[in-house]
Amino acid sequence: MSSAVNPLRDAQDRRLPRIAGPSGLVIFGVTGDLSRKKLMPAVYDLANRGLLPPGFSLVGFARRDWEHEDFAQVVHDAVREHARTPFREEVWQQLAQGMRFVSGVFDDDDAFRTLKATIEELDKSRGTGGNFAFYLSVPPKFFPTVVSQLKEHGLSDGQGDSWRRAVIEKPFGHDLKSAQDLNSVVHDVFRPSEVFRIDHYLGKETVQNILALRFANTMFEPLWNRSYVDHVQITMAEDIGIGGRAGYYDGIGSARDVIQNHLLQLLALTAMEEPVSFEAKPLVTEKMKVLNSVRLPEDLAAHTVRGQYAAGWQGGRKVLGYLDEDGIDPQSGTDTYAAIKLEIDNRRWAGVPFYLRTGKRLGRRVTEIAVVFQRAPHSPFGATDTQELGQNALVIRVQPDEGVTIRFGSKVPGTQMEIRDVTMDFAYGESFTESSPEAYERLILDVLLGDANLFPRHQEVERSWEILDPIEEHWERHGKPEQYPAGTWGPAAADEMLARDGRSWRRP
Amino acid sequence: MSSAVNPLRDAQDRRLPRIAGPSGLVIFGVTGDLSRKKLMPAVYDLANRGLLPPGFSLVGFARRDWEHEDFAQVVHDAVREHARTPFREEVWQQLAQGMRFVSGVFDDDDAFRTLKATIEELDKSRGTGGNFAFYLSVPPKFFPTVVSQLKEHGLSDGQGDSWRRAVIEKPFGHDLKSAQDLNSVVHDVFRPSEVFRIDHYLGKETVQNILALRFANTMFEPLWNRSYVDHVQITMAEDIGIGGRAGYYDGIGSARDVIQNHLLQLLALTAMEEPVSFEAKPLVTEKMKVLNSVRLPEDLAAHTVRGQYAAGWQGGRKVLGYLDEDGIDPQSGTDTYAAIKLEIDNRRWAGVPFYLRTGKRLGRRVTEIAVVFQRAPHSPFGATDTQELGQNALVIRVQPDEGVTIRFGSKVPGTQMEIRDVTMDFAYGESFTESSPEAYERLILDVLLGDANLFPRHQEVERSWEILDPIEEHWERHGKPEQYPAGTWGPAAADEMLARDGRSWRRP
Repeated sequence: MSSAVNPLRDAQDRRLPRIAGPSGLVIFGVTGDLSRKKLMPAVYDLANRGLLPPGFSLVGFARRDWEHEDFAQVVHDAVREHARTPFREEVWQQLAQGMRFVSGVFDDDDAFRTLKATIEELDKSRGTGGNFAFYLSVPPKFFPTVVSQLKEHGLSDGQGDSWRRAVIEKPFGHDLKSAQDLNSVVHDVFRPSEVFRIDHYLGKETVQNILALRFANTMFEPLWNRSYVDHVQITMAEDIGIGGRAGYYDGIGSARDVIQNHLLQLLALTAMEEPVSFEAKPLVTEKMKVLNSVRLPEDLAAHTVRGQYAAGWQGGRKVLGYLDEDGIDPQSGTDTYAAIKLEIDNRRWAGVPFYLRTGKRLGRRVTEIAVVFQRAPHSPFGATDTQELGQNALVIRVQPDEGVTIRFGSKVPGTQMEIRDVTMDFAYGESFTESSPEAYERLILDVLLGDANLFPRHQEVERSWEILDPIEEHWERHGKPEQYPAGTWGPAAADEMLARDGRSWRRP
Repeated sequence: MSSAVNPLRDAQDRRLPRIAGPSGLVIFGVTGDLSRKKLMPAVYDLANRGLLPPGFSLVGFARRDWEHEDFAQVVHDAVREHARTPFREEVWQQLAQGMRFVSGVFDDDDAFRTLKATIEELDKSRGTGGNFAFYLSVPPKFFPTVVSQLKEHGLSDGQGDSWRRAVIEKPFGHDLKSAQDLNSVVHDVFRPSEVFRIDHYLGKETVQNILALRFANTMFEPLWNRSYVDHVQITMAEDIGIGGRAGYYDGIGSARDVIQNHLLQLLALTAMEEPVSFEAKPLVTEKMKVLNSVRLPEDLAAHTVRGQYAAGWQGGRKVLGYLDEDGIDPQSGTDTYAAIKLEIDNRRWAGVPFYLRTGKRLGRRVTEIAVVFQRAPHSPFGATDTQELGQNALVIRVQPDEGVTIRFGSKVPGTQMEIRDVTMDFAYGESFTESSPEAYERLILDVLLGDANLFPRHQEVERSWEILDPIEEHWERHGKPEQYPAGTWGPAAADEMLARDGRSWRRP
């Protein structure tokens, strides 16, 4: 594909692009928010970047009584509103010709027969080659029906060399048992290698950069262990409340919503050994080794904290407390803030605590991994020379302001030796002219290419629940979460939890 | 001293300032350029920052037939033109009251008797307490006369608790023998601890920051050795030619002028072990250990290069070649560019080459220390993923744009794993509101305080000549320096020298 045909490819990129082969995507639940805001625009952006095959086809499956054209119009509107790349009529036309809509409910055999016929028609008219991914953008309770229907109607198995894949979104269960049930439902129909679980955090550039940073460089890995690291803080803070997610969120809470998947994945990528390669299998092997080495503190009361936001001020505006939000049980004990301390029982990390925290209605929206180093083992400087010197830290900023910051001590200009913390900064946005693909772009392309390395495997999901379940059970037995005013950095107990260890949370 | 009296002290600096006790400074050769451009302004700036005692006195000694007032006027003009801090009449007045001028040549006994009487008068009128530093801002050939006159006239020894110190400027000889002779002349009269050799590079903030960076932090020192460092490049490049220094420079050349002192000192600070403290003695101990471990390559022809600038273009302007400069012998074999490779035979650095280079009329004015790390021992990435990835490097920028840069590999945004070099930056100027004192301010204050840690000791000077002498002798026996066009980065042989080692010079 020449750059004239594909003006969005970067001229600096001299490598062959990863382009999906003949294929199509079927989205169940295509009328939902995720589909409209993320999936449809991502498909268009991929096409616009020249990364989809010419005959790529998109099939929507939902209850509405739409014609193909109605569906195409919905996609068109979603693309115009949410796509990241410029709208180009010729790209759109080519894509729109491969759009089909199947109307039906999930237990409707006719609808699945129509779906099958549609796929066969696309194989002929668009050359999709029988390769289809089924994106289950539907609540988990519908998974059993959809996957068994796919099996019933002979849709779950490709013919000859062609492939069929299933894409599922979190929640991957709400505890170990439900996750195992869900996995067994899906694995009854699809092989593990055909199942792609979306953790959109893993599609983010800065998350992938953790691997580049650690393993393509010389200078970080020698420091990346218990000899030099004092502790690690992994934070995902949101400034928003639960918004319209009351129905899903209440009874689930922040630990299940964020720690179980995003934060434990970030922990795994931060702490794991170098994989043999960045293929899916060696990566899962290393991530599982870390997750299997994770140990909960014995005293869960002292080393876990949950909170629930009370009314407060945010962005100069008075906001409601969680219990006053629409659709929330006023007696709800759901956590909107959770902080936990984990240890990793292996040679590299023994004795180095990993503190994970997440919360809604916190001071600011930020996701970061902070590797905080020990103080120098000995200081040849006088105590007063270094009284304003903190600990060295390397911070991977996942969002916003993606980049890396290093904090270290430097001499203050002047005729005496005084040393103070300074920072040095690498900002993704400033260093590259290339634009970051949206996480969903990257992940959908990977699904079509069969690259599973950015998707958590079922054993990771199950092991993560195994880590979280005892904490949730402990919380269930012990009262309610501590209230914290919206716009602050969480409950006082979270600060006390670190203070007991002689540490403090970063205020990012 | 309250901050009202001393508005130039930084409000953020909560530490007690280092203020000189009762004392005075005698400058021999006070009519010279150095005195006018650097020493006089530095004395004023120190006074203005409140770092000199109220009765501080400045005595000029030179041939001119000046009155005290004439001298004060010369200082005044120099201060107005070259001082870095604002002019404040009350500070000036207080300083000016302590200014005296002694007219005479160096072998004039009457002049030295006047000098003695002047000092005694100042002790009474200004309370200088008999504490005087003699700054020999004169060509080395006058050293013997001046120091013996000081001794003759009883000026070189303080009475009781008072001190006398000698300050000398480079060149500290032009080879080992002449340096030893010079040191023995000075040490005949002053104790080694009373002799302060000015290497103004060591007064620079960023040079002092090498120590802070290495030893106040945790994250650099573990990498600072042969296990991770591939090689070190120390560069002092000037864009100017020899200017008005022909008389001094021709026959001396760049290696004697820069490598022997500045660059070997930078090497010592970069490579040395942690000193017991930052007092002068433990520092010299560590620097000497490094210098004593320095080994020249056996094949000097292959691992040293000298060059001489030819005509060329610089800053959009045609400039003369060295041999066409005013006052230069057209047959001169003096090097204006020198590059040498050194090894350090100790456990930390064995096998890690240190490349030192300096030159005039190079591409740009820059002094930096670049610690270039080895490539990662293994890359789990594909070869094409990292084809644009260089070696990690930590660069200490001494001047201009003082700061620290780290170069490392980061994932290029996009749907594939491609890794490219990026940099992160710490700039002194941006991180601190405090202004950097000029090197001479710092060094003069240190002389008055008796802090010798930023001054090379005689053993360092002699050992540095011991390192350089064989190279100079080799060069003397082997033809003339290679010409390089002004405005380029030196002779081709310098590039070849590194290419033979599979490396290349940075283009800073």
